[in-house]
Amino acid sequence: MGKCVNHPDRETSYLCMKHNTYLCEECLKCRDPNIYCKFRSSCPIWFLSKRKEGLDTEEKVKKADTCDEHKVVFMPDGKEVVVTGSMTLLDAALRAGVHLNASCGGKGSCGKCKLIVESGRVESRPDVLLTEKEKKENYVLACMSEISGDVKVRIPEEALEKKLKVAGMGNDVTRQLKELVKNIQPILMEIPLELEPPSLVDSVSDLDRLNRGLKKEGLDISRLNIGIGVMRELASAMRDENWKITASVIQKKCSSEILRITPGNEKLRSLGIAVDVGTTSVVVYLVDMEDGAVIAATSGHNRQAACGDDVINRIICSEKDGVAKLSQMVLMTINNLISEALDSAGADYRRIKNVVISGNTTMTHLLLKIEPKHIRREPYIPSVSEFPILKAGEIGIMADPIAAVFIMPGPASYVGGDIVSGLVYTGLHREDPLTLFIDVGTNGEIVLGNKEWLMTASCSAGPAFEGGGIRWGMRAEEGAIEKVSIDTGTLTPSFTTVGNLPPRGICGSGMIDLIAEMLFTGIIDAGGKIRLEHSHPRIQKDGDDLAYIVVPAAETAMEKDIIFSETDIHSLVLSKGAVYAGFTVLLNQAGLDFSMVDRVWIAGGFGRYLNVERAIMIGLLPDIARDKFKYIGNSSVAGAYLALLSEDHRKEARDICNGMTYIDFSSNNRFMEEFTSALFLPHTDINSFPSVKKLMPSGQDDKRM
Amino acid sequence: MGKCVNHPDRETSYLCMKHNTYLCEECLKCRDPNIYCKFRSSCPIWFLSKRKEGLDTEEKVKKADTCDEHKVVFMPDGKEVVVTGSMTLLDAALRAGVHLNASCGGKGSCGKCKLIVESGRVESRPDVLLTEKEKKENYVLACMSEISGDVKVRIPEEALEKKLKVAGMGNDVTRQLKELVKNIQPILMEIPLELEPPSLVDSVSDLDRLNRGLKKEGLDISRLNIGIGVMRELASAMRDENWKITASVIQKKCSSEILRITPGNEKLRSLGIAVDVGTTSVVVYLVDMEDGAVIAATSGHNRQAACGDDVINRIICSEKDGVAKLSQMVLMTINNLISEALDSAGADYRRIKNVVISGNTTMTHLLLKIEPKHIRREPYIPSVSEFPILKAGEIGIMADPIAAVFIMPGPASYVGGDIVSGLVYTGLHREDPLTLFIDVGTNGEIVLGNKEWLMTASCSAGPAFEGGGIRWGMRAEEGAIEKVSIDTGTLTPSFTTVGNLPPRGICGSGMIDLIAEMLFTGIIDAGGKIRLEHSHPRIQKDGDDLAYIVVPAAETAMEKDIIFSETDIHSLVLSKGAVYAGFTVLLNQAGLDFSMVDRVWIAGGFGRYLNVERAIMIGLLPDIARDKFKYIGNSSVAGAYLALLSEDHRKEARDICNGMTYIDFSSNNRFMEEFTSALFLPHTDINSFPSVKKLMPSGQDDKRM
Repeated sequence: MGKCVNHPDRETSYLCMKHNTYLCEECLKCRDPNIYCKFRSSCPIWFLSKRKEGLDTEEKVKKADTCDEHKVVFMPDGKEVVVTGSMTLLDAALRAGVHLNASCGGKGSCGKCKLIVESGRVESRPDVLLTEKEKKENYVLACMSEISGDVKVRIPEEALEKKLKVAGMGNDVTRQLKELVKNIQPILMEIPLELEPPSLVDSVSDLDRLNRGLKKEGLDISRLNIGIGVMRELASAMRDENWKITASVIQKKCSSEILRITPGNEKLRSLGIAVDVGTTSVVVYLVDMEDGAVIAATSGHNRQAACGDDVINRIICSEKDGVAKLSQMVLMTINNLISEALDSAGADYRRIKNVVISGNTTMTHLLLKIEPKHIRREPYIPSVSEFPILKAGEIGIMADPIAAVFIMPGPASYVGGDIVSGLVYTGLHREDPLTLFIDVGTNGEIVLGNKEWLMTASCSAGPAFEGGGIRWGMRAEEGAIEKVSIDTGTLTPSFTTVGNLPPRGICGSGMIDLIAEMLFTGIIDAGGKIRLEHSHPRIQKDGDDLAYIVVPAAETAMEKDIIFSETDIHSLVLSKGAVYAGFTVLLNQAGLDFSMVDRVWIAGGFGRYLNVERAIMIGLLPDIARDKFKYIGNSSVAGAYLALLSEDHRKEARDICNGMTYIDFSSNNRFMEEFTSALFLPHTDINSFPSVKKLMPSGQDDKRM
Repeated sequence: MGKCVNHPDRETSYLCMKHNTYLCEECLKCRDPNIYCKFRSSCPIWFLSKRKEGLDTEEKVKKADTCDEHKVVFMPDGKEVVVTGSMTLLDAALRAGVHLNASCGGKGSCGKCKLIVESGRVESRPDVLLTEKEKKENYVLACMSEISGDVKVRIPEEALEKKLKVAGMGNDVTRQLKELVKNIQPILMEIPLELEPPSLVDSVSDLDRLNRGLKKEGLDISRLNIGIGVMRELASAMRDENWKITASVIQKKCSSEILRITPGNEKLRSLGIAVDVGTTSVVVYLVDMEDGAVIAATSGHNRQAACGDDVINRIICSEKDGVAKLSQMVLMTINNLISEALDSAGADYRRIKNVVISGNTTMTHLLLKIEPKHIRREPYIPSVSEFPILKAGEIGIMADPIAAVFIMPGPASYVGGDIVSGLVYTGLHREDPLTLFIDVGTNGEIVLGNKEWLMTASCSAGPAFEGGGIRWGMRAEEGAIEKVSIDTGTLTPSFTTVGNLPPRGICGSGMIDLIAEMLFTGIIDAGGKIRLEHSHPRIQKDGDDLAYIVVPAAETAMEKDIIFSETDIHSLVLSKGAVYAGFTVLLNQAGLDFSMVDRVWIAGGFGRYLNVERAIMIGLLPDIARDKFKYIGNSSVAGAYLALLSEDHRKEARDICNGMTYIDFSSNNRFMEEFTSALFLPHTDINSFPSVKKLMPSGQDDKRM
């Protein structure tokens, strides 16, 4: 027996004799040779799988082993991977742990996964998404290029993964968070005990003695279970340190279980993990379960990005390649972030005893390898809304294998645990004021309510505000244009970028600024069409569209024009229209209107850089008193943190999930009407935006200037 | 993945490529090459283990593979086994599934494991337990003979395993048993459901829909758990047969769990198994869970017999060879009996959904591979008294792997679940009359009480009444002398045997008859010493002892004198003394005496053939009104049957276990005094046996005749 080379927390007996490497059953089952053995094709376990495929003789196996093995090097980092058989550069990048954007999920339609071939060659399908110049410079689309020999590729500057701007909530916020927890109650507890040794007059069984000790500590032993494995270890564990032991006990909804008994009763540090699994990015908090301190916070891109930007593409990918592949991707993301957090804290993963995971319904299904395919098909049914307490070992999270995992419950296919987690954090369900809660990420989820009632809905906002489907759209990474203003005279923009670096693209807040400025400087009309002539120096033709040149090539990081086209504007108008229509319909269902809303809370990474004034100008947010708006940050990880520390908050999450009324917009006629009305800037009914109406340029209905 | 060759209910990926045979992890871990591969030494998985042991090169492995491989054939059945390395004939017999008695556990002290070498040779240690005649006839002791080449051996007639006389309780009894159950409540239920398909207005998750369906069937869904594996199958299982499903739900003490969802809601036959795991023999009932009918009953010898007759020797053996070996032995016994029962009923093991196991504390520990070693060491502590519900798959019982297993709880190391099971059956704890319950098997357990209170104790009766430690002692198998009377004039015995076959030995009831007859014909005195002269034709010298010839060689099955020696008598007197002292002390502790006892209930296989009158004559049972005695049969399996069918009876078992007061005799001075007084026939205080006193021959104190 030994530890799996891919999952150090798993004991296994599958030994690769040549490399003296162990692999667990899950790795073996995985058809991906790169996953199931680090030594790949030269490993006998791989041989075995080849044999099963019908290659019987040693020579044939050897042949299969060597004839199609190719090395791929990814520059500038120099990461290498050896691949076998036919495989695209996108898949190879994924295996090498190289992050490439592929908004469309590898269908060759978004054009984001560009690579430059430096040496060697690939079999690329000719592609219209590449310019003649790019073709000359050996650009290829990774998803459309089959590896046919050793190859070295370079990731172009504009596509390089940069550090996410936000890791967590910041120290101040986590300090405030801590104060929300009165009493730390972990799910899995380690209880140190010193028991009375047995005697002829006190000869109860070892288990009864243990239960007696636990009862003294206040546990309800009438509801205490124990597994066969622990019973087998009981006698020696209790005697090894002279009746001093530590009991690991998990407290479930309706019963408790003794999961492990270890000799000795020295109190060791217990750690917890709160995870926000976003479609785009993942945030991990490493928490000291003794005092609730956030020891480390890490964040990174969800590796599933290679399968598409939004949950629909992820589900399609899981139907094609299997749920296991997407589960593995997000597990690797999470486990790398946990590992990074542990390294910075100098801690051991086996000390992690409690985990809370918050994510949307698709993310939790994929993570847990639960079939997600019915989420995207009418009537949009998730497999599970409320999850039982799981063990880290059974789902592959890097922690003590018996660590308790609480998954934030989510009421519907498109309103998930991340939203419930957000509510747990905000506490709006405990208070009187009528609150509109909105999380705009790759999807837009809205909650309306107060302590009396809660309604929720999801509007398919699409990933435009996160840069998806926008030519030069990107997330709020280094080099992203985040603020823009346009000179009314020269129509020349001035802007700032994240990290004050040369611009690489435009992030959500930058795009909102840009549309608002273009509208109020008269560059576009209320329908989102460009009013300037083709010949204007800031305008260029982009297929059948016109596009506004935001930054000329000379000033950019990658020496290409950053443009903003009518198509880009249209995508954003569709997104903002869906969100605004969502607000309207939800209020309408409750018999209310915007004037009755006391607070608007904006969650999610996108919200942080949002200029509320500009968002109202383009009709994304309603035109109500500005002091009603508040940015509340990554409320998903904040709620996960609270649930990690307290049973009250876990119960709260279950109560919120069960108490919410979900409104389905997909078949809602009113939503379709409101959506259509919202496809103007700011809105068809300008009177619902009085403060914007005042600012609108007089000549907005004129023909092109 | 495939099914383990030894455990068809287990999926595994360990494939022996040469034989296309799968082995599960447990089999691989087992050091016994015979267990872990049916193809043994020629199997690459075995090679692997040799490599680990330091034999690195292929040649060395080949050498290790072939140089010490020997075939052993056991006649008269012709069973074969190939063994490697050094091994005794006893171990080889065990591996071949050949039953040999080895009361002493293979220490070479009981002389019961005799075999005749027909061809080939073994390295035997010279042994005093073999007569010169036997040595000439190539007799060897299996436990003292190392295999050093191919060999063919024959099991002597007197040692051949015969069918046990009692399979179960008989049809009449099981019909009566059935009437004790008002309402059948299995632990694991299969609930057929037809669910409403989801729609946009009813879009709860699959799990919520399932829970809703279960709630309609009356289940408490607030306490319902579900594992990750079932969640992963949920979506497809529910849709495969258009929302018709069958849910397997287990009801535990304080929570329930959905263990499996299968498509389709056709009602299938559900079976149950009630098992009595005795130290000596094992009884299995196969039960139809729909109507409670006992479909088949099978019984057989516990294969652990090769490790000794009593629980102490079994524990010693487990300390030497590991608990896994003894667990495997009893599992093979149980699974063979289940298989036999299924065959006779034409049923599939996967239809077995519920299992109840009743056994003494050592038997349940060994079966479950729970450390038993502290049971035999002061202060005699078992690991577990009350077990949680287990799954058949996790302990290796041949049934649906998710089948629920209820283990009868036992209050102490020497009063186990078999006794609690017996009480559940008798119901003495529900009634007014003061009852003395006794189960004399390889140990003697006593319970005294009524519905107000229960006291229990164990007296180390030893295995004498089951034939252990008695030269010609045997169990009530075919050919056992079961009734004896001796002609007062000629002192010649007449007897009957089980099955009316030529005598092979003497069983418990025969020995009691024999002692009583020898006492009342004056052959022995009250101290158990033979009063006849050496020269009497019925007397022969046996070492320093004298022995009475019960059957001369010519009339026996194996043409050897069946004798009964002073040592044999002494062993039986020790046993009966311990039991009687146990009665006395228990009554004394309760401030009572024999006159206050309303009923004496005798349980266990031994009790069936017991002549109460004779048992009183030798002082085993108290001299009270004969109509107070009642034989109640194998109450352990009967109680297991009741617990299989009804939660009330399972609860009753837990209540009995928790409500019993256990009296430890090991350090009890009063017990030692009473025991010493009881080492006479019938007792030192003859006045406590008034009806025996009347019958005693006048010249009992005379010198030898």
